[in-house]
Amino acid sequence: MTEQVPVVEKILSANDHLASVTRKLLDDAGVFGINIMASPGAGKTSTIIELAKRLKDDLRIGVIDGDVETSIDADRTRAAGMPSVQINTGGGCHLDANMTFNGVQQMDLSAIDLLIIENVGNLICPSYFDIGTHLNILIASIPEGDDKPYKYPNMYRNVDVLLVNKTDLLPYIDFRMDYFTQGVEILNPGLMTFPYSAKTGEGMDAFVSWLKERVAAHQHG
Amino acid sequence: MTEQVPVVEKILSANDHLASVTRKLLDDAGVFGINIMASPGAGKTSTIIELAKRLKDDLRIGVIDGDVETSIDADRTRAAGMPSVQINTGGGCHLDANMTFNGVQQMDLSAIDLLIIENVGNLICPSYFDIGTHLNILIASIPEGDDKPYKYPNMYRNVDVLLVNKTDLLPYIDFRMDYFTQGVEILNPGLMTFPYSAKTGEGMDAFVSWLKERVAAHQHG
Repeated sequence: MTEQVPVVEKILSANDHLASVTRKLLDDAGVFGINIMASPGAGKTSTIIELAKRLKDDLRIGVIDGDVETSIDADRTRAAGMPSVQINTGGGCHLDANMTFNGVQQMDLSAIDLLIIENVGNLICPSYFDIGTHLNILIASIPEGDDKPYKYPNMYRNVDVLLVNKTDLLPYIDFRMDYFTQGVEILNPGLMTFPYSAKTGEGMDAFVSWLKERVAAHQHG
Repeated sequence: MTEQVPVVEKILSANDHLASVTRKLLDDAGVFGINIMASPGAGKTSTIIELAKRLKDDLRIGVIDGDVETSIDADRTRAAGMPSVQINTGGGCHLDANMTFNGVQQMDLSAIDLLIIENVGNLICPSYFDIGTHLNILIASIPEGDDKPYKYPNMYRNVDVLLVNKTDLLPYIDFRMDYFTQGVEILNPGLMTFPYSAKTGEGMDAFVSWLKERVAAHQHG
Protein backbone atom coordinates (compact mmCIF):
# COMPACT_ATOMS: atom_id res chain seq x y z
CA MET A 1 0.00 0.00 0.00
CA THR A 2 2.91 2.37 0.66
CA GLU A 3 3.77 2.41 -3.03
CA GLN A 4 0.29 3.38 -4.13
CA VAL A 5 0.23 7.03 -3.12
CA PRO A 6 3.07 8.27 -5.38
CA VAL A 7 1.46 6.51 -8.36
CA VAL A 8 -1.87 8.19 -7.78
CA GLU A 9 -0.17 11.56 -7.40
CA LYS A 10 1.62 11.06 -10.71
CA ILE A 11 -1.65 10.21 -12.47
CA LEU A 12 -3.38 13.27 -11.06
CA SER A 13 -0.46 15.53 -11.89
CA ALA A 14 -0.39 14.24 -15.50
CA ASN A 15 -4.17 14.70 -15.61
CA ASP A 16 -3.94 18.28 -14.39
CA HIS A 17 -1.24 19.09 -16.94
CA LEU A 18 -3.32 17.71 -19.80
CA ALA A 19 -6.38 19.54 -18.50
CA SER A 20 -4.42 22.82 -18.70
CA VAL A 21 -3.43 22.02 -22.29
CA THR A 22 -7.08 21.40 -23.18
CA ARG A 23 -8.19 24.63 -21.48
CA LYS A 24 -5.53 26.53 -23.46
CA LEU A 25 -6.86 25.00 -26.72
CA LEU A 26 -10.35 26.21 -25.83
CA ASP A 27 -9.06 29.67 -24.80
CA ASP A 28 -7.15 30.08 -28.06
CA ALA A 29 -10.29 29.22 -30.02
CA GLY A 30 -12.46 31.53 -27.91
CA VAL A 31 -14.52 28.60 -26.66
CA PHE A 32 -15.98 28.47 -23.14
CA GLY A 33 -16.02 24.94 -21.73
CA ILE A 34 -18.34 23.56 -19.05
CA ASN A 35 -18.27 20.21 -17.28
CA ILE A 36 -21.70 18.92 -16.27
CA MET A 37 -21.75 16.29 -13.53
CA ALA A 38 -24.68 14.50 -11.86
CA SER A 39 -26.10 11.19 -10.66
CA PRO A 40 -27.52 8.82 -13.25
CA GLY A 41 -30.88 10.18 -14.37
CA ALA A 42 -30.66 13.66 -12.84
CA GLY A 43 -31.33 15.10 -16.29
CA LYS A 44 -27.95 16.05 -17.77
CA THR A 45 -28.84 15.37 -21.40
CA SER A 46 -32.35 16.86 -21.12
CA THR A 47 -30.90 19.99 -19.54
CA ILE A 48 -28.30 20.36 -22.31
CA ILE A 49 -31.03 20.04 -24.95
CA GLU A 50 -33.22 22.62 -23.20
CA LEU A 51 -30.25 24.99 -22.81
CA ALA A 52 -29.48 24.63 -26.52
CA LYS A 53 -33.04 25.61 -27.48
CA ARG A 54 -32.73 28.81 -25.46
CA LEU A 55 -29.18 29.67 -26.57
CA LYS A 56 -29.38 28.83 -30.26
CA ASP A 57 -29.72 32.43 -31.48
CA ASP A 58 -26.78 33.59 -29.35
CA LEU A 59 -24.24 30.79 -29.13
CA ARG A 60 -23.01 27.89 -31.23
CA ILE A 61 -22.84 24.82 -28.96
CA GLY A 62 -20.85 21.59 -29.23
CA VAL A 63 -21.25 18.60 -26.90
CA ILE A 64 -18.95 15.86 -25.69
CA ASP A 65 -20.96 13.08 -24.04
CA GLY A 66 -19.25 10.73 -21.60
CA ASP A 67 -20.77 7.34 -20.85
CA VAL A 68 -19.66 3.89 -19.78
CA GLU A 69 -21.11 2.41 -22.97
CA THR A 70 -23.48 3.29 -25.85
CA SER A 71 -23.98 6.52 -27.80
CA ILE A 72 -27.53 7.24 -26.56
CA ASP A 73 -26.64 10.69 -25.22
CA ALA A 74 -24.62 11.84 -28.25
CA ASP A 75 -27.42 10.57 -30.51
CA ARG A 76 -29.86 12.76 -28.56
CA THR A 77 -27.70 15.90 -28.58
CA ARG A 78 -26.84 15.42 -32.28
CA ALA A 79 -30.53 14.97 -33.08
CA ALA A 80 -31.07 18.29 -31.28
CA GLY A 81 -28.74 19.92 -33.84
CA MET A 82 -25.45 20.10 -31.95
CA PRO A 83 -22.12 18.69 -33.16
CA SER A 84 -21.55 15.83 -30.70
CA VAL A 85 -18.74 13.48 -29.78
CA GLN A 86 -19.40 10.38 -27.67
CA ILE A 87 -16.68 9.14 -25.34
CA ASN A 88 -17.13 5.64 -23.93
CA THR A 89 -15.07 4.99 -20.83
CA GLY A 90 -15.35 1.21 -21.16
CA GLY A 91 -16.29 0.64 -17.54
CA GLY A 92 -14.57 3.74 -16.15
CA CYS A 93 -16.66 5.78 -13.71
CA HIS A 94 -15.58 9.28 -14.84
CA LEU A 95 -14.03 11.27 -17.67
CA ASP A 96 -10.39 12.27 -17.31
CA ALA A 97 -8.33 14.96 -19.04
CA ASN A 98 -6.92 12.50 -21.57
CA MET A 99 -10.41 11.52 -22.72
CA THR A 100 -11.62 15.10 -23.07
CA PHE A 101 -8.35 16.15 -24.79
CA ASN A 102 -9.03 13.44 -27.37
CA GLY A 103 -12.68 14.45 -27.61
CA VAL A 104 -11.76 18.09 -28.21
CA GLN A 105 -9.48 17.02 -31.11
CA GLN A 106 -12.56 15.64 -32.85
CA MET A 107 -14.55 18.84 -32.43
CA ASP A 108 -14.25 21.79 -34.87
CA LEU A 109 -13.58 24.48 -32.26
CA SER A 110 -13.85 27.28 -34.83
CA ALA A 111 -17.51 26.32 -35.29
CA ILE A 112 -18.55 26.65 -31.65
CA ASP A 113 -18.63 29.21 -28.81
CA LEU A 114 -19.65 26.91 -25.97
CA LEU A 115 -18.44 23.36 -25.37
CA ILE A 116 -20.61 21.36 -22.99
CA ILE A 117 -19.02 18.20 -21.64
CA GLU A 118 -21.48 15.77 -20.11
CA ASN A 119 -19.62 13.63 -17.59
CA VAL A 120 -20.43 10.02 -16.61
CA GLY A 121 -23.44 9.70 -14.29
CA ASN A 122 -21.79 9.47 -10.88
CA LEU A 123 -21.54 11.68 -7.78
CA ILE A 124 -18.14 10.39 -6.66
CA CYS A 125 -15.35 9.77 -9.20
CA PRO A 126 -15.86 12.77 -11.55
CA SER A 127 -15.35 15.19 -8.64
CA TYR A 128 -11.64 14.27 -8.44
CA PHE A 129 -10.69 15.09 -12.05
CA ASP A 130 -10.06 18.41 -13.81
CA ILE A 131 -11.05 17.75 -17.43
CA GLY A 132 -9.96 21.07 -18.89
CA THR A 133 -13.16 23.11 -18.72
CA HIS A 134 -13.70 26.60 -17.28
CA LEU A 135 -16.68 25.80 -15.10
CA ASN A 136 -17.76 22.74 -13.11
CA ILE A 137 -21.52 22.38 -12.84
CA LEU A 138 -23.44 19.89 -10.70
CA ILE A 139 -27.03 19.00 -11.46
CA ALA A 140 -28.83 17.81 -8.34
CA SER A 141 -32.31 16.38 -8.74
CA ILE A 142 -35.25 16.69 -6.34
CA PRO A 143 -36.16 12.95 -6.34
CA GLU A 144 -32.58 12.05 -5.31
CA GLY A 145 -33.42 13.42 -1.87
CA ASP A 146 -32.30 16.27 0.34
CA ASP A 147 -29.35 14.51 2.00
CA LYS A 148 -27.06 14.32 -1.02
CA PRO A 149 -24.74 17.25 -0.11
CA TYR A 150 -24.01 15.50 3.20
CA LYS A 151 -23.39 12.14 1.55
CA TYR A 152 -21.35 13.27 -1.48
CA PRO A 153 -19.44 16.22 0.01
CA ASN A 154 -16.46 16.17 -2.34
CA MET A 155 -18.71 16.77 -5.32
CA TYR A 156 -20.62 19.62 -3.69
CA ARG A 157 -17.40 21.14 -2.36
CA ASN A 158 -15.71 21.36 -5.77
CA VAL A 159 -18.34 22.76 -8.12
CA ASP A 160 -18.77 26.34 -9.31
CA VAL A 161 -22.50 26.24 -9.98
CA LEU A 162 -25.36 24.08 -8.70
CA LEU A 163 -28.45 23.38 -10.78
CA VAL A 164 -31.38 21.77 -8.95
CA ASN A 165 -33.53 19.99 -11.52
CA LYS A 166 -37.04 18.47 -11.42
CA THR A 167 -38.64 21.14 -9.25
CA ASP A 168 -41.93 20.09 -10.91
CA LEU A 169 -41.80 16.97 -8.68
CA LEU A 170 -41.56 18.95 -5.41
CA PRO A 171 -45.28 18.55 -4.61
CA TYR A 172 -44.95 14.75 -4.71
CA ILE A 173 -41.70 14.27 -2.78
CA ASP A 174 -40.63 14.82 0.84
CA PHE A 175 -37.74 17.16 0.08
CA ARG A 176 -36.67 19.54 2.86
CA MET A 177 -35.22 22.44 0.89
CA ASP A 178 -33.84 24.02 4.09
CA TYR A 179 -31.90 20.89 4.99
CA PHE A 180 -30.54 20.58 1.45
CA THR A 181 -29.52 24.26 1.24
CA GLN A 182 -27.89 24.11 4.66
CA GLY A 183 -25.72 21.18 3.55
CA VAL A 184 -24.69 23.02 0.39
CA GLU A 185 -23.86 26.17 2.35
CA ILE A 186 -21.61 24.28 4.80
CA LEU A 187 -19.60 22.70 1.97
CA ASN A 188 -19.55 25.52 -0.55
CA PRO A 189 -20.57 28.86 0.98
CA GLY A 190 -22.31 31.23 -1.42
CA LEU A 191 -22.50 28.62 -4.21
CA MET A 192 -24.49 30.02 -7.14
CA THR A 193 -27.65 27.88 -7.28
CA PHE A 194 -30.44 27.70 -9.88
CA PRO A 195 -33.57 25.61 -9.17
CA TYR A 196 -35.43 24.66 -12.37
CA SER A 197 -37.32 22.02 -14.28
CA ALA A 198 -35.96 20.86 -17.64
CA LYS A 199 -39.39 19.31 -18.25
CA THR A 200 -41.58 22.39 -17.74
CA GLY A 201 -38.88 25.01 -18.41
CA GLU A 202 -39.64 26.75 -15.10
CA GLY A 203 -36.57 28.57 -13.79
CA MET A 204 -34.36 27.91 -16.81
CA ASP A 205 -34.19 31.51 -18.01
CA ALA A 206 -32.28 32.67 -14.94
CA PHE A 207 -29.49 30.16 -15.54
CA VAL A 208 -29.47 30.83 -19.30
CA SER A 209 -28.98 34.58 -18.72
CA TRP A 210 -26.23 33.96 -16.21
CA LEU A 211 -24.43 31.52 -18.54
CA LYS A 212 -24.65 33.90 -21.51
CA GLU A 213 -22.96 36.58 -19.42
CA ARG A 214 -20.21 34.18 -18.35
CA VAL A 215 -19.52 33.14 -21.96
CA ALA A 216 -19.49 36.77 -23.13
CA ALA A 217 -17.09 37.73 -20.32
CA HIS A 218 -14.78 34.88 -21.37
CA GLN A 219 -14.86 35.87 -25.03
CA HIS A 220 -14.21 39.54 -24.37
CA GLY A 221 -12.17 39.28 -21.18
CA MET B 1 -0.23 0.14 -19.48
CA THR B 2 0.89 -3.46 -20.10
CA GLU B 3 1.71 -3.88 -16.40
CA GLN B 4 -1.70 -2.75 -15.24
CA VAL B 5 -3.74 -5.82 -16.21
CA PRO B 6 -1.96 -8.35 -13.97
CA VAL B 7 -2.25 -5.97 -11.02
CA VAL B 8 -5.97 -5.56 -11.52
CA GLU B 9 -6.39 -9.31 -11.87
CA LYS B 10 -4.53 -9.86 -8.62
CA ILE B 11 -6.74 -7.37 -6.80
CA LEU B 12 -9.91 -8.97 -8.13
CA SER B 13 -8.66 -12.45 -7.33
CA ALA B 14 -7.81 -11.41 -3.74
CA ASN B 15 -11.21 -9.75 -3.54
CA ASP B 16 -13.02 -12.88 -4.71
CA HIS B 17 -11.12 -15.03 -2.25
CA LEU B 18 -12.01 -12.77 0.67
CA ALA B 19 -15.63 -12.63 -0.53
CA SER B 20 -15.76 -16.44 -0.35
CA VAL B 21 -14.39 -16.35 3.20
CA THR B 22 -17.08 -13.84 4.19
CA ARG B 23 -19.83 -15.92 2.57
CA LYS B 24 -18.58 -18.98 4.47
CA LEU B 25 -18.75 -17.02 7.75
CA LEU B 26 -22.37 -16.12 6.97
CA ASP B 27 -23.20 -19.70 5.96
CA ASP B 28 -21.73 -21.13 9.15
CA ALA B 29 -23.82 -18.70 11.19
CA GLY B 30 -26.98 -19.44 9.17
CA VAL B 31 -27.14 -15.85 7.97
CA PHE B 32 -28.40 -14.92 4.50
CA GLY B 33 -26.54 -11.92 3.03
CA ILE B 34 -27.81 -9.48 0.43
CA ASN B 35 -25.98 -6.69 -1.38
CA ILE B 36 -28.17 -3.72 -2.29
CA MET B 37 -26.87 -1.46 -5.05
CA ALA B 38 -28.39 1.66 -6.65
CA SER B 39 -27.81 5.23 -7.82
CA PRO B 40 -27.63 7.97 -5.20
CA GLY B 41 -31.14 8.63 -3.97
CA ALA B 42 -32.89 5.60 -5.48
CA GLY B 43 -34.14 4.74 -2.00
CA LYS B 44 -31.79 2.07 -0.61
CA THR B 45 -32.04 3.10 3.04
CA SER B 46 -35.80 3.78 2.88
CA THR B 47 -36.34 0.38 1.29
CA ILE B 48 -34.28 -1.37 3.97
CA ILE B 49 -36.31 0.36 6.70
CA GLU B 50 -39.61 -0.59 5.04
CA LEU B 51 -38.42 -4.19 4.58
CA ALA B 52 -37.47 -4.35 8.26
CA LYS B 53 -40.95 -3.23 9.35
CA ARG B 54 -42.52 -6.06 7.35
CA LEU B 55 -39.97 -8.73 8.35
CA LYS B 56 -39.58 -7.95 12.04
CA ASP B 57 -41.79 -10.80 13.29
CA ASP B 58 -40.03 -13.35 11.08
CA LEU B 59 -36.37 -12.39 10.75
CA ARG B 60 -33.69 -10.64 12.80
CA ILE B 61 -31.95 -8.17 10.50
CA GLY B 62 -28.51 -6.54 10.66
CA VAL B 63 -27.30 -3.81 8.33
CA ILE B 64 -23.89 -2.75 7.01
CA ASP B 65 -24.12 0.69 5.41
CA GLY B 66 -21.48 1.74 2.88
CA ASP B 67 -20.92 5.42 2.15
CA VAL B 68 -18.16 7.72 1.00
CA GLU B 69 -18.44 9.72 4.24
CA THR B 70 -20.82 10.25 7.20
CA SER B 71 -22.94 7.79 9.20
CA ILE B 72 -26.34 9.16 8.08
CA ASP B 73 -27.52 5.78 6.75
CA ALA B 74 -26.36 3.69 9.72
CA ASP B 75 -27.93 6.26 12.06
CA ARG B 76 -31.23 5.78 10.21
CA THR B 77 -31.14 1.97 10.20
CA ARG B 78 -30.04 1.86 13.86
CA ALA B 79 -32.87 4.24 14.76
CA ALA B 80 -35.19 1.77 13.02
CA GLY B 81 -34.06 -0.88 15.50
CA MET B 82 -31.46 -2.82 13.52
CA PRO B 83 -27.87 -3.46 14.60
CA SER B 84 -25.90 -1.35 12.10
CA VAL B 85 -22.29 -0.92 11.07
CA GLN B 86 -21.23 2.06 8.96
CA ILE B 87 -18.35 1.64 6.52
CA ASN B 88 -16.85 4.83 5.09
CA THR B 89 -14.87 4.28 1.92
CA GLY B 90 -13.05 7.61 2.21
CA GLY B 91 -13.64 8.62 -1.39
CA GLY B 92 -13.95 5.10 -2.81
CA CYS B 93 -16.90 4.54 -5.15
CA HIS B 94 -17.85 1.02 -4.01
CA LEU B 95 -17.54 -1.52 -1.21
CA ASP B 96 -15.05 -4.33 -1.67
CA ALA B 97 -14.73 -7.73 0.02
CA ASN B 98 -12.13 -6.47 2.48
CA MET B 99 -14.47 -3.75 3.74
CA THR B 100 -17.43 -6.09 4.16
CA PHE B 101 -15.21 -8.76 5.78
CA ASN B 102 -14.21 -6.14 8.36
CA GLY B 103 -17.82 -5.01 8.73
CA VAL B 104 -19.01 -8.58 9.33
CA GLN B 105 -16.42 -8.94 12.14
CA GLN B 106 -18.20 -6.13 13.95
CA MET B 107 -21.63 -7.73 13.64
CA ASP B 108 -22.92 -10.39 16.08
CA LEU B 109 -23.91 -12.98 13.49
CA SER B 110 -25.59 -15.19 16.10
CA ALA B 111 -28.11 -12.38 16.66
CA ILE B 112 -29.29 -12.05 13.05
CA ASP B 113 -30.83 -14.13 10.25
CA LEU B 114 -30.53 -11.63 7.42
CA LEU B 115 -27.57 -9.31 6.75
CA ILE B 116 -28.39 -6.42 4.42
CA ILE B 117 -25.37 -4.64 3.00
CA GLU B 118 -26.15 -1.23 1.52
CA ASN B 119 -23.51 -0.43 -1.08
CA VAL B 120 -22.24 3.04 -2.07
CA GLY B 121 -24.67 4.99 -4.29
CA ASN B 122 -23.27 4.30 -7.75
CA LEU B 123 -24.35 2.34 -10.85
CA ILE B 124 -20.83 1.59 -12.08
CA CYS B 125 -18.10 0.58 -9.62
CA PRO B 126 -20.07 -1.71 -7.25
CA SER B 127 -21.04 -3.99 -10.14
CA TYR B 128 -17.46 -5.24 -10.47
CA PHE B 129 -17.00 -6.49 -6.89
CA ASP B 130 -18.22 -9.62 -5.12
CA ILE B 131 -18.59 -8.56 -1.47
CA GLY B 132 -19.44 -11.96 -0.02
CA THR B 133 -23.24 -11.91 -0.07
CA HIS B 134 -25.65 -14.52 -1.47
CA LEU B 135 -27.77 -12.21 -3.55
CA ASN B 136 -27.07 -9.03 -5.54
CA ILE B 137 -30.03 -6.68 -5.68
CA LEU B 138 -30.33 -3.53 -7.78
CA ILE B 139 -32.84 -0.83 -6.92
CA ALA B 140 -33.80 1.18 -9.99
CA SER B 141 -35.92 4.26 -9.51
CA ILE B 142 -38.63 5.65 -11.80
CA PRO B 143 -37.33 9.27 -11.81
CA GLU B 144 -33.89 8.08 -12.96
CA GLY B 145 -35.44 7.43 -16.34
CA ASP B 146 -36.13 4.45 -18.57
CA ASP B 147 -32.75 4.32 -20.34
CA LYS B 148 -30.63 3.21 -17.39
CA PRO B 149 -30.31 -0.49 -18.34
CA TYR B 150 -28.85 0.60 -21.69
CA LYS B 151 -26.44 3.05 -20.09
CA TYR B 152 -25.24 0.96 -17.13
CA PRO B 153 -25.31 -2.53 -18.65
CA ASN B 154 -22.71 -4.14 -16.40
CA MET B 155 -24.84 -3.44 -13.35
CA TYR B 156 -28.05 -4.76 -14.90
CA ARG B 157 -26.22 -7.80 -16.30
CA ASN B 158 -24.83 -8.93 -12.96
CA VAL B 159 -27.71 -8.68 -10.50
CA ASP B 160 -30.00 -11.47 -9.29
CA VAL B 161 -33.05 -9.35 -8.48
CA LEU B 162 -34.30 -5.97 -9.69
CA LEU B 163 -36.44 -3.72 -7.52
CA VAL B 164 -38.07 -0.75 -9.26
CA ASN B 165 -38.83 1.90 -6.65
CA LYS B 166 -40.93 5.10 -6.64
CA THR B 167 -43.80 3.75 -8.74
CA ASP B 168 -45.92 6.40 -6.97
CA LEU B 169 -44.19 8.97 -9.24
CA LEU B 170 -45.17 7.21 -12.50
CA PRO B 171 -48.10 9.59 -13.18
CA TYR B 172 -45.73 12.58 -13.15
CA ILE B 173 -42.82 11.23 -15.18
CA ASP B 174 -42.33 10.23 -18.82
CA PHE B 175 -41.17 6.68 -18.15
CA ARG B 176 -41.65 4.15 -20.94
CA MET B 177 -41.94 0.89 -18.97
CA ASP B 178 -41.76 -1.17 -22.20
CA TYR B 179 -38.45 0.41 -23.20
CA PHE B 180 -37.03 -0.11 -19.70
CA THR B 181 -38.19 -3.74 -19.50
CA GLN B 182 -36.85 -4.49 -22.97
CA GLY B 183 -33.40 -3.22 -21.94
CA VAL B 184 -33.43 -5.34 -18.80
CA GLU B 185 -34.52 -8.42 -20.76
CA ILE B 186 -31.68 -8.04 -23.30
CA LEU B 187 -29.05 -7.84 -20.55
CA ASN B 188 -30.47 -10.25 -18.00
CA PRO B 189 -33.19 -12.48 -19.48
CA GLY B 190 -35.85 -13.54 -16.99
CA LEU B 191 -34.50 -11.28 -14.23
CA MET B 192 -36.85 -11.39 -11.22
CA THR B 193 -38.34 -7.88 -11.00
CA PHE B 194 -40.49 -6.23 -8.33
CA PRO B 195 -41.98 -2.76 -8.94
CA TYR B 196 -42.92 -0.99 -5.69
CA SER B 197 -43.01 2.24 -3.74
CA ALA B 198 -41.13 2.44 -0.44
CA LYS B 199 -43.13 5.60 0.27
CA THR B 200 -46.66 4.21 -0.14
CA GLY B 201 -45.82 0.55 0.46
CA GLU B 202 -47.50 -0.46 -2.80
CA GLY B 203 -45.96 -3.65 -4.19
CA MET B 204 -43.65 -4.33 -1.25
CA ASP B 205 -45.44 -7.45 -0.04
CA ALA B 206 -44.57 -9.44 -3.16
CA PHE B 207 -40.84 -8.87 -2.66
CA VAL B 208 -41.08 -9.46 1.10
CA SER B 209 -42.74 -12.88 0.54
CA TRP B 210 -40.18 -13.83 -2.07
CA LEU B 211 -37.27 -12.79 0.19
CA LYS B 212 -38.68 -14.69 3.17
CA GLU B 213 -38.78 -17.85 1.05
CA ARG B 214 -35.20 -17.33 -0.11
CA VAL B 215 -33.94 -16.85 3.43
CA ALA B 216 -35.87 -19.92 4.65
CA ALA B 217 -34.48 -22.03 1.79
CA HIS B 218 -30.95 -20.92 2.73
CA GLN B 219 -31.44 -21.74 6.39
CA HIS B 220 -32.91 -25.17 5.75
CA GLY B 221 -31.19 -26.02 2.49
